Amino acid sequence: MARNLPHRRRNGTSDFDREKLSFIPLGGLGEIGKNMYILEYDDEIIVIDSGLKFPDSELPGIDYIVPDISYLEANRDKILAILITHGHEDHTGGLPYVLPRLNVPLYGTQLTLGLIRNKLQDDLPGFRPDMHEIRAGDIIKIGSFTIRFIAVAHSIPDGVALSIETPLGRVVHTGDFKLDSTPVDGRVTDYGAFAEEGDKGVMLLCSDSTNAERKGFTPSERIISGTLDTLFRTYRTKRIIISSFASNVHRIQQVADVAARFNRKIAFLGRSMLRNADLARDTGYLKIDSKMIIQIEEIWKYSDNQLVIITTGSQGEPFSGLVTMSRGENKAIDLGEHDVVFLLASVIPGNEKLVNNTINRLFAQGCEVVYEKDRQIHVSGHASSEELKIMLNLTRPQYFVPVHGEYKHLVRHSQLAQEVGILPRNIFLMVNGDILTFTRNNPPKKHGHVQAGAVIVDGNAAGSIKSEVLKERREIAEDGVLVVAVAVDERGNLLAPAAIETQGVFISEDSRDIFNELYAVSEQAVAELSGRRANPEALRKTIKTRVRDVLRKRNSSFAVVLPVVSVKSRDSNNVFEKEFF
Amino acid sequence: MARNLPHRRRNGTSDFDREKLSFIPLGGLGEIGKNMYILEYDDEIIVIDSGLKFPDSELPGIDYIVPDISYLEANRDKILAILITHGHEDHTGGLPYVLPRLNVPLYGTQLTLGLIRNKLQDDLPGFRPDMHEIRAGDIIKIGSFTIRFIAVAHSIPDGVALSIETPLGRVVHTGDFKLDSTPVDGRVTDYGAFAEEGDKGVMLLCSDSTNAERKGFTPSERIISGTLDTLFRTYRTKRIIISSFASNVHRIQQVADVAARFNRKIAFLGRSMLRNADLARDTGYLKIDSKMIIQIEEIWKYSDNQLVIITTGSQGEPFSGLVTMSRGENKAIDLGEHDVVFLLASVIPGNEKLVNNTINRLFAQGCEVVYEKDRQIHVSGHASSEELKIMLNLTRPQYFVPVHGEYKHLVRHSQLAQEVGILPRNIFLMVNGDILTFTRNNPPKKHGHVQAGAVIVDGNAAGSIKSEVLKERREIAEDGVLVVAVAVDERGNLLAPAAIETQGVFISEDSRDIFNELYAVSEQAVAELSGRRANPEALRKTIKTRVRDVLRKRNSSFAVVLPVVSVKSRDSNNVFEKEFF
Repeated sequence: MARNLPHRRRNGTSDFDREKLSFIPLGGLGEIGKNMYILEYDDEIIVIDSGLKFPDSELPGIDYIVPDISYLEANRDKILAILITHGHEDHTGGLPYVLPRLNVPLYGTQLTLGLIRNKLQDDLPGFRPDMHEIRAGDIIKIGSFTIRFIAVAHSIPDGVALSIETPLGRVVHTGDFKLDSTPVDGRVTDYGAFAEEGDKGVMLLCSDSTNAERKGFTPSERIISGTLDTLFRTYRTKRIIISSFASNVHRIQQVADVAARFNRKIAFLGRSMLRNADLARDTGYLKIDSKMIIQIEEIWKYSDNQLVIITTGSQGEPFSGLVTMSRGENKAIDLGEHDVVFLLASVIPGNEKLVNNTINRLFAQGCEVVYEKDRQIHVSGHASSEELKIMLNLTRPQYFVPVHGEYKHLVRHSQLAQEVGILPRNIFLMVNGDILTFTRNNPPKKHGHVQAGAVIVDGNAAGSIKSEVLKERREIAEDGVLVVAVAVDERGNLLAPAAIETQGVFISEDSRDIFNELYAVSEQAVAELSGRRANPEALRKTIKTRVRDVLRKRNSSFAVVLPVVSVKSRDSNNVFEKEFF
Repeated sequence: MARNLPHRRRNGTSDFDREKLSFIPLGGLGEIGKNMYILEYDDEIIVIDSGLKFPDSELPGIDYIVPDISYLEANRDKILAILITHGHEDHTGGLPYVLPRLNVPLYGTQLTLGLIRNKLQDDLPGFRPDMHEIRAGDIIKIGSFTIRFIAVAHSIPDGVALSIETPLGRVVHTGDFKLDSTPVDGRVTDYGAFAEEGDKGVMLLCSDSTNAERKGFTPSERIISGTLDTLFRTYRTKRIIISSFASNVHRIQQVADVAARFNRKIAFLGRSMLRNADLARDTGYLKIDSKMIIQIEEIWKYSDNQLVIITTGSQGEPFSGLVTMSRGENKAIDLGEHDVVFLLASVIPGNEKLVNNTINRLFAQGCEVVYEKDRQIHVSGHASSEELKIMLNLTRPQYFVPVHGEYKHLVRHSQLAQEVGILPRNIFLMVNGDILTFTRNNPPKKHGHVQAGAVIVDGNAAGSIKSEVLKERREIAEDGVLVVAVAVDERGNLLAPAAIETQGVFISEDSRDIFNELYAVSEQAVAELSGRRANPEALRKTIKTRVRDVLRKRNSSFAVVLPVVSVKSRDSNNVFEKEFF
């Protein structure tokens, strides 16, 4: 790709080429979630966002996933700041994991930092990060980087894009955005600022690819207001229960406005809903007359047509307000024929089944449910293809990296960039960990790779679970586990009959005599290996093979066979020697 | 509900009420899949369809699910026939399980029986069921039932609805249908026949609820032809790979017709695709000039723009043609930049992730992929709400049972029935196993329940897996299993140190000393219970409690604790006494 090779020094590096700017995504490429991007110039690093990703059914029992930050830990001294574009968890949720490891200053807008503070209070009580509040329009200097924060519309208020001036050129990172011309809070995406940066010259644009597959424009959030008006009129006699994202303050605002017009009181239900509503009202992002808000415990004082209950659970989260209602297990509210539920959210890929089951259960409670797509009950917070082309034309970047998307989204976004005239060779399809390096005189180049991947956070074990553990879980999830326990003396002689236990194993009625065979082959394996110093590893291996053979031969089960061997030994410590992991 | 009580005999049953007709769904209600419905009059039973359902991620390791047919097995002598409406697996796939248990005559159309024959050849080689081929329009008498087969359009050719005359009234069962006015084979849903039955009087309508949520009309299958024409023109230089359902003969026909216009040869890839294409061509349902068809091994002889490859995998099935291609593991074909893949199918709920991963991998192979909904690359085979209302108006039933759908679909369908004037009290929302009984003088009544549910077919274990086994699998899938093995003598004294093994358990580096504690509490539990006759059950229980307490106290793991106890005993048989299930 390099065309005009500059004068080179003997060591093969030109003077100019020693000055480098690297863009390194640690998360957010090839996936929706755990966004984290690095900009590195010389010995200075700034980090953009620090998100999490929720696991799918392939990772049973996992709480959430964050990016592998080994590279940042190894370069901790270089990091000047983490800049947060907005308050969604796929951009902030990694902080409870990241901040204790990299305690560096955090920059974000008022609402974004408020949400982060709430989160840290739960996960890291007592931890006080160094937080710097910025506003859209601010320009700050951090090391060699000059950063302009640009207002963008999104499905959460107070989002910003970043235009980062570096010694080698300007990098514009859009964050999550849409070009909503009539946003609920009137804070329009700042086209002018993007155009100005474009005029000054943008070397690299990194832009949100989430909706690159969608044609046209994403509708304005404001259309929800019209839908709500119609729905409130249609169901005027019913009690209305609304489920939405707790962070979608604009949508809650619209519900509150319509509720006011229909003289209904609002009760919030669910911890995150209550907390986010409080924060948003305290900071002025959500404007609801206090007289309109009642506690969930007071709803019995009002008739059905005087109430709106706003709750969580739009993604079918097991312990959310809506899901417990759908199971008839919510303490505060019982659903029935006098209720209607509006699901004001789209289903995040991977949650289809949870949401669908919730809808079926809600119907079984006897209430009406409004959830169909054609009712305009949800609009996306991300720009569709025409908006993405406008962003490309506003900033007119020399180089383009589509970010924030699965591989298919990145491909579609790069096709859009080609449509507006960016040359294919100036577009880089990157994966997490790739290093894209800019130098002064040569075209940028993808070269090398830093350690990147997923760190799995499971309950209190806030470390990285080895993928081996997950593989083991998947294996036993498929066919169960069959344990064969034998106890032997120092010479490998059986001390007691072999014992077998199973968990999740299916063996049909007519082949239960198989157990006699399993005992026999296990004990025979012990007998064959006896007479010399007991070797637990060899015993385990042999038993495993023999038992598997029987199961296979009898076509009986594909269970994972787990042999357990205990050895009676003078040196009682030797049982601790074996490795568990 | 009973209004005009007839004269009753002393035992409380009127003469007339002794004559009963019951409709009993065994599968297909509250779900999409495993359709099976019973019509029972006196001591005569006919069964409609015998389907399977594919499992979702909540049933790891399961091959498929069929209805629990205990009721039919108990009433085997009464069963006169199984009537099959069409050849889809959710209507036929249970036969390999059902037929050996209830060997009764099977009725179906030519293509339907052909597909069943292929299926039985694999699963029950040598088994020759008693098959009766019928055609749409036929009227046959089976016992007290007179059955008219009515042509319906669907996403597989040769589908039929049933109008069943019984001594107590006429039952119309639509099967799967749509009102496609321009079906590819010209075989329009026989409105006239439904209207005739309506004129004669329909007591009960059971109608397909799959698309009750969708407004308007389902588009004609024929629109795919126009889409294909545009796509073939757009990608005229590329090799075209098409993935579709192997049973969607009409769609394959349209692909073949467009391929002919663009002078492309067709190669089929994948066993089910090859076999279905052969069957459909042999029976005349698929018309392709032999000269157009080449073997997959010959594709190297042709240039990209002379080829169309039709394969399976539209649902992301792991071993399908498309998925192996997306992994670069297909023996016959390597994908690259010169290829375009058309995914001509919608994603069946539950398969979203598999399909999405396949698309991402296809892009990573460098090829273009056409999959977006707004490209009109798929139309449904099921009637939308306006069509469902037409069916209700054609048949004008006295009573209505929405069938073939999740609970939400049944509710929506019952709302449509109310819109066209059926009284709510004449609509029955049923669940699998419910019995709806018609008598001569009283309104029908849901009363009682027959055993219904899922029989899980897992590999060769073609029996029913107890739900307990599945619950166990889910538990270990979440957090792994930790096994503690102890061997004791007859008096309960430890024979060797306790042994521990884990599978899928994560314990962080800094809490590995936890194992010392686990050994200690396990051995202490044994010591406490020693001195009297060894009681394995008490030992297991105590060890389990102690080990769990340690794990919980140390916040370390939620693993399932599985204690295994072997007892040295003079009576070596006693180890076989304990129950495994």
